[in-house]
Order: sequence, then C-alpha cells, then structure tokens
Amino acid sequence: MTEQTETTPGWLAPEDLESVRGQLPILYIDAVPVRVDETGVVTRIGTLLRIAPDGTVSRALVSGRVLHHERVRDALLRHLEKDLGPVALPHIPASPQPFTVAEYFPTPGVTQYHDPRQHAVSLAYVVPVAGDCRPRQDALDLVWFTPDEAASPMVQQEMAGGQGVLLKQALAYVGALP
Amino acid sequence: MTEQTETTPGWLAPEDLESVRGQLPILYIDAVPVRVDETGVVTRIGTLLRIAPDGTVSRALVSGRVLHHERVRDALLRHLEKDLGPVALPHIPASPQPFTVAEYFPTPGVTQYHDPRQHAVSLAYVVPVAGDCRPRQDALDLVWFTPDEAASPMVQQEMAGGQGVLLKQALAYVGALP
Amino acid sequence: MTEQTETTPGWLAPEDLESVRGQLPILYIDAVPVRVDETGVVTRIGTLLRIAPDGTVSRALVSGRVLHHERVRDALLRHLEKDLGPVALPHIPASPQPFTVAEYFPTPGVTQYHDPRQHAVSLAYVVPVAGDCRPRQDALDLVWFTPDEAASPMVQQEMAGGQGVLLKQALAYVGALP
Amino acid sequence: MTEQTETTPGWLAPEDLESVRGQLPILYIDAVPVRVDETGVVTRIGTLLRIAPDGTVSRALVSGRVLHHERVRDALLRHLEKDLGPVALPHIPASPQPFTVAEYFPTPGVTQYHDPRQHAVSLAYVVPVAGDCRPRQDALDLVWFTPDEAASPMVQQEMAGGQGVLLKQALAYVGALP
Repeated sequence: MTEQTETTPGWLAPEDLESVRGQLPILYIDAVPVRVDETGVVTRIGTLLRIAPDGTVSRALVSGRVLHHERVRDALLRHLEKDLGPVALPHIPASPQPFTVAEYFPTPGVTQYHDPRQHAVSLAYVVPVAGDCRPRQDALDLVWFTPDEAASPMVQQEMAGGQGVLLKQALAYVGALP
Repeated sequence: MTEQTETTPGWLAPEDLESVRGQLPILYIDAVPVRVDETGVVTRIGTLLRIAPDGTVSRALVSGRVLHHERVRDALLRHLEKDLGPVALPHIPASPQPFTVAEYFPTPGVTQYHDPRQHAVSLAYVVPVAGDCRPRQDALDLVWFTPDEAASPMVQQEMAGGQGVLLKQALAYVGALP
Repeated sequence: MTEQTETTPGWLAPEDLESVRGQLPILYIDAVPVRVDETGVVTRIGTLLRIAPDGTVSRALVSGRVLHHERVRDALLRHLEKDLGPVALPHIPASPQPFTVAEYFPTPGVTQYHDPRQHAVSLAYVVPVAGDCRPRQDALDLVWFTPDEAASPMVQQEMAGGQGVLLKQALAYVGALP
Repeated sequence: MTEQTETTPGWLAPEDLESVRGQLPILYIDAVPVRVDETGVVTRIGTLLRIAPDGTVSRALVSGRVLHHERVRDALLRHLEKDLGPVALPHIPASPQPFTVAEYFPTPGVTQYHDPRQHAVSLAYVVPVAGDCRPRQDALDLVWFTPDEAASPMVQQEMAGGQGVLLKQALAYVGALP
C-alpha cells in the first residue's frame, strides 16, 4: 500500500489493479461530449485526439474507471474535467440511465467492444458541455465534429476498441445518426 | 378562421380543436422542471401553483400541446418559456427519448392519467432549468420542492389528472423517489 | 358519419382525417419486429416488402395511427397483428418508454423523417416476435435480415421517409449497429 | 486456486473476492421478474422470499454478480435461472439499456442503496417471465404481487438495502407505480 492509496480513497495501486483485471469486470464510464443549441439539438461532438510517436492519429471518447466509493456521476464529472479542463461546464445527466452499456471484452468478437487489457463494462452517457474546453493532458487535443463528420468512415476508422460504434450509438440516441 | 390562425402556423381555432378532440389522440408534452447540482443530482422540482376563485389550490407540471409543424423540442421550449419566463434557461434534452409516455384518457381508469376534455398522449421529460424563473401567466406561481416534499401526500393530492403519479415517475427516473 | 365510424370507436372518416391532417400532428407508432435468441440478442430484423405495379421494391417497418381512446400498447398489438398475422406472438414492451420519437414532417429536412401527407409523430419500439409471421395484407411480404444486412446500403435505400434511419436507430438501441 | 476456478472462468475464490471488495466497485445485475398480459401490461411482480432462522421475513429481487468474461445478458439469464428455475423462460431485454443503475454503497446515505459488504453497482432490468417458476435454492420462495401490493408499505419494509425503492422505480418505469 502506498501513501497515495491512503489519501485517495478508491485508488488502486497499479500492481493490484493488474491482478484484479483478470478476475472481475471493471466498471467504466464513457462520456460523449456534445455542443447543443437552445432546443437541445446536438450540433457538435467532441473527440479526443492522440498522436502517437510514430505519427498515428487516434481518437477517443472521454472514458475512465469508476473508483471504489465513487458515484457514477462523480466519476463522469472527474473524467470530463480531467480531459476537457476545469471550465468545460458539463451538464451531467439527472438520470443515471445510460443510453447504452458498452461491454469491452479482452477477447475480440464477443461484443462490438474490445479492450486487450481487461473486461471493462462501461456506462455510456451523452454530456452537453457549455463552457470552454481546454484539454489538459499533454498528448490530447479536442476536435469538434458535426454529426455527419463523426459518423463518417474517416473519423470512424480513427477510433479504436469499438468506440466508433459507441459514437454512432450516441448519435442514434440523440436523433443525429445520418 | 381568425387572423391569429393565419399568423400562427399550427394554431387551431377553438371550435376546430373542439371537434377534433373527440376524434384523435392529441399530442402533448409534459415537462418536469428541476434544479440540479454540478453532478446532475436533482435538488428541487418546480410545480406550477394555481389558486381557483374558490381558494382551491392545485399544482401542475409544465404541459401543453404540440402544434402542427412544430418539433417536440420546440414545443418543450415554448411551453417552458410560457410558464417559467424567458430567462429560465431550460436545458432541453439532447435525446427525444422521453422518460415515459403519459396517456390521458377522457374515461377515468383506463390508464393512471385522466383528462375529461380529451384523449391526450404526452411525451414526458425532465428538464433542468439554470436561470431565473418568473411565471408569466397571471394565475400561476412556481414553487420548488425537494424530492421528498414532491412525493409527499400533501403535494400529491394537490395534483390532478394523474400528474402526481407522473411527478413520482420523474423522481424514479432521476433516482430521487423516496 | 358512416356506420363503420359508429362501430369502430376512434375510427375517423377519410374526409375528416384529411381535414385534420393539416391542423394537428397525428400520433403514430413504429414497431421494429425482431427475432431474439434466449439471451435477448437480436438475430433478425423483419421488414415489410411492397412491390409497386411498376416493379419498384420498397421496404417498411410496421407503422400506423393510434386511434382515439386506444392505448399505445393496444395500437402496437393491433398494427403488428395486422401486418404479421394473428399468431406472430409479439412481446409488447412492458415500459411505454420508446427508444426514440420519430417526427415525420410534411416538409423535407426539418427532421430526418418525412411524410408528404401529414405531420406524424411516431413512438418507436423494438418488438420481439416469437410466433409464426404470415403477412396478411395482399401487397406485403415479410423479409428477415441480419443486423448487418438491415444496415447495409442495399436495404437502406429501399426504405422511404427516413425509416432506414429509424431502423439503424433501433439497431443502435439493441447494440447491433455494425 | 481450486479446480472450480479453472473450470469456471470468471469465478473468483472467496478470499480473493473479499480482498477485491474493498478496492473496486463490483458489477451486479438486478432483475425484476414480472408477469405481463398480451399487451405488455405488468400484472404481477415476483419477489424472492427468505425466512431467517429467527423467523424474520425478507424479500429480495433477483440479483447477483457479473463474472469476468461474462456478458451482462448472460449474467441476467444465469441469475434468473438460478433463482426461478430452468423453465422460467425469461425474456431477456433486447437492449442493454437498464431502466436505472443502482449504486449500493457500503456507507449508508451516499445513495438510496446500501450493501454493508461492498460497493456494488447494479444494472437494473425488468424481465418478463413466461414459464413456470420454481425457486431452486432452499431458503427461497417466490411470491407474486400486484403492482399495488408491491408498492405497499408492508412489502416495502420487508426489502433491504434499498431494493424496495428499486422495485418502485421498476413500477414507475413500466407505468404501474400507484
């Protein structure tokens, strides 16, 4: 047990997380950040951009673990602030009902989602953000797409692990799937 | 046909609406205005207060017809602005999926909802409002309740036509039914 | 008023329906019939086939009006039995919450759905059917597709009025959008 | 490691589960078994009855862990068969969208749900069952209630950990909350 574990309830030492990953499904959240107009119509979808050292571009949704003793809505807020910055002003949904549950399996093909590291089960939400988004982590930029662009093969093929499908499911949920 | 009909597309002359009401289900929206904290937890539920000439108090949700050639989300915004004022800043849901469909029948007992005037089918949404609410119509005031108060027999018995049940369904949907 | 009107409550004479169609949104249901395995996975999606006199093939979902004084779930059952026959054994959803609300506008482009005859607002449900399906109406046949086939351009282009998009939304809702 | 662990992928030795329980939220499912009529109306809700050695009666929903490398829908089927027997014929939902997410915290009061043993996050589904239900585990019987009975104080006070609230949420979801 490290000092950090004691001061961060729910935080798990990397070596412990590793050993747990082969034994239990790990609870995640996926958040699809969107811009909406005053009638709630989704006008833009935010995706995180990552450029690998070899120049490969990949895109991802806001995603992360739910910690021990952390509510799902607190996990949503924490991951959105971590990836979009402290003044993104996300509108966390009032209802805990996710638009879908994405089951990432370590074995490809069991579901549409795949995570080679673990069996992760992710509650997926569409989250309107009203403020300024300033990606805080070095390797990440944030790019806003129209619904049509987000569903296009170009964007879809840059998303890994089935997150492209998850993005299309989010578009379907908000009535914006082309 | 009155002048108003010509300038208000979708508006129906009262005598025409009356004749249609016995022939078709009429499409409505119900909106449950709520205050939420930064994690989306519902802290207050808004109900409209009406005091009849005989002193009877009744409470209602924001409710009204969807007009011809009007989108559901535009009807939501219109009725919320009509009842809560122009600076209520409602967050109209991004998804058209309602939390339930309330079927108000002219005959009591067919469903939990009753409207002696008509067969109305209402799409029901929970709508967080961020701004100042100033009820504009003379007979209406707006009262904010905690979830526990909103589900209490005192408030429930002041709601008519099954809107008390609809309010409890909204509380269940946001995880705040006591 | 015809005799049929008297014996069929909620039924509207064609000339009356015509006059109403320009004045009010008309309430519809859309049902996506599916075959599921014992774990609920959708294996097939049913579409109705119509061949026009000129040989044009078009496909449609089960769709139709909700009548006056008819519950939404009764309308679902009625239209499913009308199109799939009396022994289709549809599992009407326990919850009235539709997976989406499809707004068919007479003007193209307002939403993704279009109906030149009217402004129809349709509550859309996925309905597993367990029995034998025998299309009863002369011009209709029923074809079962895999999810991949249903989302393919070939099938999509044979669906009109936005029902192809609605079918993809249904696939997204059940986690089967490719 | 026992033989059972090797032959039952995802199964966790009790001592390992114990050590994990303080470190991560554990993924669960809750299923509310219901009887429905041909239009999908819920007529009865099934609850499991447990009589403690001291004669205390408690009631519970079908509930249990999702195992490593197990789909949520397979976990639903497994727990329903375990508690209701092999010929209950549950209609597992086609959509993975739960009607709510119940967060059981080891600390009372954080949410409406409480589990002194662990932080469990449970995906909650309403599941119609069509066949014969024969509870297989010794201590359990199955009792079917009408919606009104299920929401009554008598039944509610016999349910622990917030499952009474969860049952009322299920009733709200199917439009049967009194």
